[in-house]
Amino acid sequence: MRAVDVIMDKRAGKELSREAIEFLVGGYVSGAIPDYQIAAWAMAVFFRGMTAAETAALTTVMLRSGSVMDLAGIPGPFVDKHSTGGVGDKTSLIIAPLVAALGIRDPMMSGRALGHTGGTLDKLEAIPGYRTDLTAAEFRAILARDGFAMTGQTTDIVPADRLMYALRDVTATVESIPLITGSILSKKVAEGADALVFDVKYGSGAFMKRSEDAQALAESLVHTGAAMGKKIIALLTDMDEPLGNMVGNFLEVEESLDCLEGKGPADLMTVTLELAARMAVLGGKAADAAEGRARCEEALASGAPRQLFLKNVESQGGDVEKLLALRGTYRSEICGEVRAASDGYITRIDAGEVGRAGVDLGVGRNRTEDRVSPTAGVQFHKKSGAAVRRGDRIMTVWGRDRPGLDAALPLLERAVTYGEAPPEVHPLILRQIGG
Amino acid sequence: MRAVDVIMDKRAGKELSREAIEFLVGGYVSGAIPDYQIAAWAMAVFFRGMTAAETAALTTVMLRSGSVMDLAGIPGPFVDKHSTGGVGDKTSLIIAPLVAALGIRDPMMSGRALGHTGGTLDKLEAIPGYRTDLTAAEFRAILARDGFAMTGQTTDIVPADRLMYALRDVTATVESIPLITGSILSKKVAEGADALVFDVKYGSGAFMKRSEDAQALAESLVHTGAAMGKKIIALLTDMDEPLGNMVGNFLEVEESLDCLEGKGPADLMTVTLELAARMAVLGGKAADAAEGRARCEEALASGAPRQLFLKNVESQGGDVEKLLALRGTYRSEICGEVRAASDGYITRIDAGEVGRAGVDLGVGRNRTEDRVSPTAGVQFHKKSGAAVRRGDRIMTVWGRDRPGLDAALPLLERAVTYGEAPPEVHPLILRQIGG
Repeated sequence: MRAVDVIMDKRAGKELSREAIEFLVGGYVSGAIPDYQIAAWAMAVFFRGMTAAETAALTTVMLRSGSVMDLAGIPGPFVDKHSTGGVGDKTSLIIAPLVAALGIRDPMMSGRALGHTGGTLDKLEAIPGYRTDLTAAEFRAILARDGFAMTGQTTDIVPADRLMYALRDVTATVESIPLITGSILSKKVAEGADALVFDVKYGSGAFMKRSEDAQALAESLVHTGAAMGKKIIALLTDMDEPLGNMVGNFLEVEESLDCLEGKGPADLMTVTLELAARMAVLGGKAADAAEGRARCEEALASGAPRQLFLKNVESQGGDVEKLLALRGTYRSEICGEVRAASDGYITRIDAGEVGRAGVDLGVGRNRTEDRVSPTAGVQFHKKSGAAVRRGDRIMTVWGRDRPGLDAALPLLERAVTYGEAPPEVHPLILRQIGG
Repeated sequence: MRAVDVIMDKRAGKELSREAIEFLVGGYVSGAIPDYQIAAWAMAVFFRGMTAAETAALTTVMLRSGSVMDLAGIPGPFVDKHSTGGVGDKTSLIIAPLVAALGIRDPMMSGRALGHTGGTLDKLEAIPGYRTDLTAAEFRAILARDGFAMTGQTTDIVPADRLMYALRDVTATVESIPLITGSILSKKVAEGADALVFDVKYGSGAFMKRSEDAQALAESLVHTGAAMGKKIIALLTDMDEPLGNMVGNFLEVEESLDCLEGKGPADLMTVTLELAARMAVLGGKAADAAEGRARCEEALASGAPRQLFLKNVESQGGDVEKLLALRGTYRSEICGEVRAASDGYITRIDAGEVGRAGVDLGVGRNRTEDRVSPTAGVQFHKKSGAAVRRGDRIMTVWGRDRPGLDAALPLLERAVTYGEAPPEVHPLILRQIGG
C-alpha cells in the first residue's frame, strides 16, 4: 500500500477501507507517514467527506493510539455528556451529580476554555483546592464512590488527536465534520462510557455558526458512534445567547449550585434537563425523554444531586466550607457595568461577543498556556426579551485587571441589540438526532 | 500574513493575491513555509483551481526561484515549442532546424523519457558524441550561430519546480491544471523565449487521456502566458497512436532526418508542420498558419533545415559522419516481430501500451536514474487503417536485452486492435487555443 494512492482515492471521493485508514493514520501516529501526506489527505477529506464506516475506522485508529480508561470492577451504566462548547455553558457541573443521583456513573473528562468558549476544568478550579489532575486510580475510586469524577485528559489519552489537531490547525483542515467527529469521539470513547449524549451547539457563541453544520456534525457523531457499537444521542441546542445569567469561572460554579438548589435560570435548566433526560434514557433509568426529565426533576427536588456535588468537591480536594462562604462575594475588585443604551426591548445578546469579552476579562484565554482568573466574569441582570429603559443595568462586569475590563466593556455593549418589540422566541432545543 | 489563512482562502475558493502566493510559495522555496502547508494548499488548489492571474503569480514566483537564460545580444525572435509528452513524438528534432531556417531562434531546453513518454535529450544522445549538457555560454554561442541549441535544464533553472514536483508526486496533487501550468510555463519562460507554441496531447499515450482535460490545460497555458506578457498558441493533438513509424532513441533521430529530407510519414509531418507554422506566425515570419505552413514547406524543400540539423550535431559534439553511416543499421541485435493476429484492418495501435513496452525494451525508463538504450525500439510497418492478412509483419522490435524484449512483445501484440472495416479517421489536430 502506498500513501499517495490512499490520498488519491480520497481525492476521487472513494470510500477508504479500514486497512487504508489504519495504514495512513496509524502510520502517521507511529512516524512512518510524514505530515505532508496527512495534510494533503486531510484537505481531500475536507472536500470529499468520509462515510460513517470510514469515520469509525479513523476514530478507532485514534483511540488505539493511547490508553483507554479501565472501568472494570465498577458497576455501570457509564454515560457521559459532551458539549461542542459555548458561552455560559455550565451544564456539565449540574448534570454529573444529577445523573449520578439516578444511579448513572459519569466518567467525565473535560477541557479548558479556549477562544471565546469556556472550559469545565477552569470553572472547577475556581473552587479553592479543587484538583482536576486526578490519577487514573483516583479517578476510578472517586467515580466508584461518588457516581462521577471530573478530570482533565491525561496525555496518554488519544495522543493521535493532539498530533492531528496540531497539523489541522496550521493546514486549514480543522472544519471537517469527519475529522472533528474522530477527534471528539475518540476522546469520549477513551473515557470508557457505554453511551454518550452530545450537545451540539450552533449560533454565534458556538463552534458551528449555522444549525445545518451542527446538524451534520450531530449526524456524523451519532452514525459513527453507532458504527463503533456505542449508544449516542445528540441534541442541537441554541448558543446564540449566553446560557444562564453568569459567565465566569467562579460565577458559573455559583450558578450551578443555584441550579442544584432549584433556583437556576429557565434557559439553563431547560438545556440541562433535556440533556440529563437523554442520559437517563441511555442509562436505562427512563423509557423516554419525558420520563427522564421527570426523574431528573424529582432527583433535584430531593436535594441529592447538590449533596453529591459537594461530596465530589471534597473528594477532589476542594474546600466545601470555603466554596459556600465565597458564594456571592468571590469577585474581582475591578468592576464595571453595562447599562441599556436605549428604551425598548433587548432583542439579542451576542454570545460570541460576550465570549470574546470574556477573554479580555480573564474568564477565557486565546492561547493554551495563558492563565485564567477565577473571579472575573459577567452577570446578566437582563437578557433577550426584557423590557428596558435607557440607563437600566444590564450587566455587572468583573475584570482581572483594568486594561482587560476597559477592552471588554465596549465588546459587551456592542453585544446587546435593542428593538421596539420583543424578539421572536427561538427554541433552545432545536432537534434530537439518534436515540 | 499567516499561511493557514492563505490556505483557508483557497479552500473557500477565493482568488489569492499575488502577495499571498509570493508569501506562500516563495516562503516554501526559501524554507520559511513547511511542506505540510504547501501540501494542504496544493490539495485545495486541486479542488478549487486558480485564476489566470493566480497561476501567473505562481509561475512568476517559481521562475524567480532560479536563473533565467540571458539571451541579451543575440537577435530574436525567440520562439520555442513544448509538448506535454507522447510516444514517437520527435517533432522537436525537426522543428528546431526548420524554424531556424526561417530566421527564428529556438532556445530549446528539453527533458528525458519518463514512464511511457519519450524524451528529446535521450534521442539526441543516441547520436554518437552529442552533448546535451551545454554550459550557458555554449548554449548562447550555438543558439547565436546555428539558430537553435538543444540542451537539458540546468539545476539553476526553476529549482522551485523540482521542490514542488517532488512534494506533489507524494501527496496526490500532480493532476492540477494550474500547478501543471506553473511547472511547464516557468521552465519555458526561463529559457528566454518571447513566444511559445504548446503541443498539448490527449489520448492513451499522453499525460491527459481526455481531450477535455487537454483543452483545460491548453487554455490555462494560453491565459496564464498572456497574463505574463508572452505570446502563446496551443494546439490540441491526438496521441492515441504513436506518432510516425519509429519509436526508439536512434530510430527517432533517423525518422527526423527522413522528415528533414522530405521523406517523413504523413501523420508526423502534419503535426510537425502545424506546430512549426504557428511558431512562424508568433515569430513574425508569416501572417497566418496557412502561410506559416507554406514557408515551412518551402524551407524543407530547400534542404536548409537538414543542413542546420547536421551543423547543430557538429556544434554539440556529435559525429555527423558516424550518424549518417549508422542510419538503417544502428539496431540492437536482440530483435523480434509483431505479426497480424487476424485478417482485416488495424483499427487502433494503443500509444500507451507501446510506450510501456518501450520501457521494457530500453527506449524509456520508469525511474529517473535508469539508463536508456540508443538501439532499442519499434518500427511500425503498418499502422491504423492498414489492411492486413494474418501473419503480416506489423512491427519490428529491438530490445536492449532478451528479458526486456520478451516482456515487451505481449504488450505490443495487445496494443493492436483489428476490425472488419477501416476505423473512423480522427483529426490529428483537434483545435487551436490562443493566437
